[in-house]
This record gives sequence, C-alpha cells and structure tokens, in this order.
Amino acid sequence: MSLLVVGSVAFDEVETPFGKCEKMLGGSASHFSISASFFTEVNVVAVVGGDFGSEELQTFSNHGIDTSDLEKIPDGKTFRWGGRYDYDLNVAHTLYTDLNVFADFKPKLSEKSRSARLVFLGNIQPDLQRGVREQVPGAELVALDTMNLWIETARESLLRTIRDVDVLIINDAEARQLTGIPNLIKAARTILTWGPKALIAKRGEYGAALFTAESYFAIPAYPLESVFDPTGAGDTFAGGFMGYLSSQKDLDEAALRRAMIFGSVMASFNVEEFGTARTQRLTDEEINERFRDFKRMTHFEEIPFERAVRALK
Amino acid sequence: MSLLVVGSVAFDEVETPFGKCEKMLGGSASHFSISASFFTEVNVVAVVGGDFGSEELQTFSNHGIDTSDLEKIPDGKTFRWGGRYDYDLNVAHTLYTDLNVFADFKPKLSEKSRSARLVFLGNIQPDLQRGVREQVPGAELVALDTMNLWIETARESLLRTIRDVDVLIINDAEARQLTGIPNLIKAARTILTWGPKALIAKRGEYGAALFTAESYFAIPAYPLESVFDPTGAGDTFAGGFMGYLSSQKDLDEAALRRAMIFGSVMASFNVEEFGTARTQRLTDEEINERFRDFKRMTHFEEIPFERAVRALK
Repeated sequence: MSLLVVGSVAFDEVETPFGKCEKMLGGSASHFSISASFFTEVNVVAVVGGDFGSEELQTFSNHGIDTSDLEKIPDGKTFRWGGRYDYDLNVAHTLYTDLNVFADFKPKLSEKSRSARLVFLGNIQPDLQRGVREQVPGAELVALDTMNLWIETARESLLRTIRDVDVLIINDAEARQLTGIPNLIKAARTILTWGPKALIAKRGEYGAALFTAESYFAIPAYPLESVFDPTGAGDTFAGGFMGYLSSQKDLDEAALRRAMIFGSVMASFNVEEFGTARTQRLTDEEINERFRDFKRMTHFEEIPFERAVRALK
Repeated sequence: MSLLVVGSVAFDEVETPFGKCEKMLGGSASHFSISASFFTEVNVVAVVGGDFGSEELQTFSNHGIDTSDLEKIPDGKTFRWGGRYDYDLNVAHTLYTDLNVFADFKPKLSEKSRSARLVFLGNIQPDLQRGVREQVPGAELVALDTMNLWIETARESLLRTIRDVDVLIINDAEARQLTGIPNLIKAARTILTWGPKALIAKRGEYGAALFTAESYFAIPAYPLESVFDPTGAGDTFAGGFMGYLSSQKDLDEAALRRAMIFGSVMASFNVEEFGTARTQRLTDEEINERFRDFKRMTHFEEIPFERAVRALK
C-alpha cells in the first residue's frame, strides 16, 4: 500500500472576503498528500527552495508523508502563488505566479517511489507528467489532473499523456474544453475512448460524477453554509479519492464509489479554513461521520410505483 | 387520492437548434397534469379559449385527467407563448407572451376540487395562488411554484402566499433571488423559517435538492446525452413529485425522497422531445426502469474507513 504524488509544493498568499493569509503551505502536492495521508502512506515528488524550512517539513512528517523525493534547491526560492476570491468563490483571480525553482523542475524518483502501487500526476506540464508515468510502469492505477492552461498550450502532449492513465480527475468545464463538446455526458463518453478507464468530473458546489464505460455515479457536494477558502479543494478531493483507493485491496467499482465520497468529504473540510489548516487537524472519526452524512443525504428506498387506479385509457 | 393543479394551459411555439414546433399543448398545468396522471387522479383548474379544440381535450381525457374545472371562454383565445433556445438550453428566450383569456383568469373550484387531498399551485400570479389555497383549507399538502417575474413585481403577495404552503418547488437561482442570500444552503434554511416545511431547489442538469428542517437530500439529474426541448421540465418534475406523493398514504420523508426521484424521472423524459410528446406515451415500466437507474447511479456501500497503518504522529 503506497501512493505516489507528483505536483507542486508552494507558498500561497490568499485573500477572500472573509480574511487574508500572507504565506501558507500550498500547491497541489501539499493539499493532495495531507488529504491522502489519513488513508495511506504517501510519497511526495516535488521541488522547494532554500526558504522551505523545518516547520513546513514538519507538517509533512506529522502526517507520516515521505519527503525523500522532495528535492531542495538551497539557493532557489519556493514556488509562490497569490490569489484573490470575491464573493463568488468559484472564481480565483490570480494576482501573481512566481514559478521560481518550479520553472526547472525535473521530477526524480527514488527506487521506492518507482515501486508505488498508485500514482497521482498532479497538475503540472504534461511532458513532466508523462515522464513520471513512464518511470512507474508497474503501477496498478494512475490518475491525472490538468488545467485549462495545458489544454490550451500543450494539447498534443496532454492527449498523449492522457492515453496512458487510468483515471482523469478534472472539472466539468475542463472536460468540455478538452473535447469541445458542450454536453458533459457526451464529453465524458468521448474521453473514455482515449484510454482512461474512468473519468471524474468535479462540479464544485454541485458535487462530482464518475463515468466508466459501463456505469455512471453522481454525488452532491456536502452542504456547506459558508466556504472560507476554496484553494486546493480539487487536490484535496483527489487526495481523499486516491488515498482511500490505496487502502483497498480491490480497486473495483464499489471501491471507486466510496473513494468519490471520501474525496468529497476531505474537500468539504478543506474549504472551511485557509490552506490546509482544517485538513491538518482532522480526526478519523470526523471523516467517517461526514461519510455517513453522505449516505444519509443520498439514500432512498428502491420501491417502484404501482398504479393503484388505472387511468381511463 | 386526488390531486388538484391550478396553472396555465397554453399553446406553445418553440424553436431549438434541433427543430421547430409551431403549435403544441403547453403551459404549467398541462405539463404537470400529464406527468402526475401516471401516478394518481388529477383535476385541472385553468382557462382556455374557443380555439382549444376536442383534440387537445382528448389529450387530457386519454390520461384520465378531470377537466370539469377547465373553464372555456368561447369568444376568447387560449394563452400563447413563443420561445427560442440556443445551444445553451438552460436559457429560454421568450419571443412573445399573449396572455389572452389568461389575463382575466379567476380560478373557480368545483366542490370536488375543493376536497382535493394534495394541491399544486402552478406558476401564476401569487394573489390567484392564495385565492385557490384558501378554497382548499383541508388539503393535506400544498406545493407552490413561482418565478423571477413575481419575485420582482409581487414580492409581498408572494411572501404571504408562501407562508401558507407546505412545499416550495423553485429553481436554485429563484431561492437565491427570493432571499437575497447567495449561498443556497443558507437561503433554504431562511425560507424554511417562513412557513413551508420543505423546499425543493431544482438545479437543471445538476439535479435537485430537498431541504427540510431536519434533513437534506440531493440527487443528480438523469444523464442525458442530448436535450431536445427543456420547456416544461420544471412542471413535469413537479407533476411526478406530487403525483407520486398523491399515491402514497404516508407523506413522510421516505415518500418525499422517492417522489423527488419520480419527479426527476418524469422531467428527464419530458426534455427528450417537443412539449409533452414523450411524456404522453410513457409506460409504467419505462418510468420504473429509470427509477431503478437512479438507484444504480447514486448507491454506494456505507463502509467507514479504518486506518490500517497509523501515521507517525
């Protein structure tokens, strides 16, 4: 049972209508690995600069996350992202993106990482994702996230990378953009002919949907009266999803469905506070309680109707 | 077991990217009653003009719908609506609205209608809705639909009408507009302090949610690869919802949940063809088959996670 993630480790500066945080641990690999760590052992492949201190490393080790493959470039600076949200928390306004050491990132995998059973290719340049994928040919399940930037600027490389992954985890808007098909169901069916065996479409406040060739599974989002900071929700979802799968022997449809719920549970906690603050101090019982909430809010009895009085036809 | 609906009966002219229909049976009461007729006996209170012929009446009687309270004004014309949809089928562009006999509509209820067990107040002027509601004081459950027009132009009357109904069935955008609260969960909680015991928020392609003081239930929409004509989907949902409830002895939470599914099932058929064409020729088995599909696409096993390997904390 081991899970490998490649992605970004960053310092985020975020402003929302509810507050401001000038420097906190962020990036896809951070959100993903902290979320996944509740379910399994995680190896992080990423790069940081000399400004990445022992306090930040401690956050990873507190969660039992293996950082042997977290490359440190002492005379470089860690990736920084600054963003602002208005009252419509669905839209992030990027204030700045300083790639720093991330600009020359070449993922290097140790022997242990190369033997990972599950792999998550976080949202980085598709050539790099493919490079990592090729180093773990024996992985049982590989999932990939991407974004509009790569769909627009590196489409051919992205399509080649998608061909060799098992699960695509993207936003519904990205599924439409990737295929040029406005109807999500049609777009999903098309993507499933490209290689992946499953597509997960994340729909923000509307939940998420899982498509495979034979089945469709859709869940609502956890009903939150307020969202504090949506940054990292998608990676936290992916972390819960992949982390749970990594803890399971059989990666069958039933496991995928429960993994969707655990992904949503983790994302619902993530947005309650800045960065990874809420996720970091979660307990197993809090996670399971919200998992049971999902059952309560989606369950109905399967009793087909029988017409008591025949109409006059 | 009887269900009363007050609303519009109209002739619709609809143009979509997939076709055009110059004159077909439409209006909230038509879509609602045909949908509900699969589950229960329906009485329609509405008004039509001299141009409403025996063919249209036949459509109602084919489904065992009681039209005794369908008032006919021989020297008037039936309500007509013309609309157009572009590729974004979520947005209807109204081309014209000729109220005709509907402009002076004063709903008149026969003794039979006044003894209805369930009542649906379709989307008409809130004073008229309240007038009908006062004539059925003994109804076990009264539901109401409305629209942005009444929220903007008759807000005070609408709020007074809402106070005395049990279930509000509206779009999520309307729930936000009605309360001025952007977060749907908060908006729903607020509406539930006004009188209704339940709120249903319709979310189009994202499904629907049911809010009560104690519970939350959310379902996806049926995954359709193409939507042909969305006109009447909301009223068809309400017809399936209220029709199913009308067939049930206990109007408890479990029945409400199944009613949500049957509402979604009926709406999913409605949008497959123009007007009520698809709904009209449905069979009980088709309805139950899609009901079972909903179970298949929302079910997951409730197995909480157990941490196999403790993290290093």
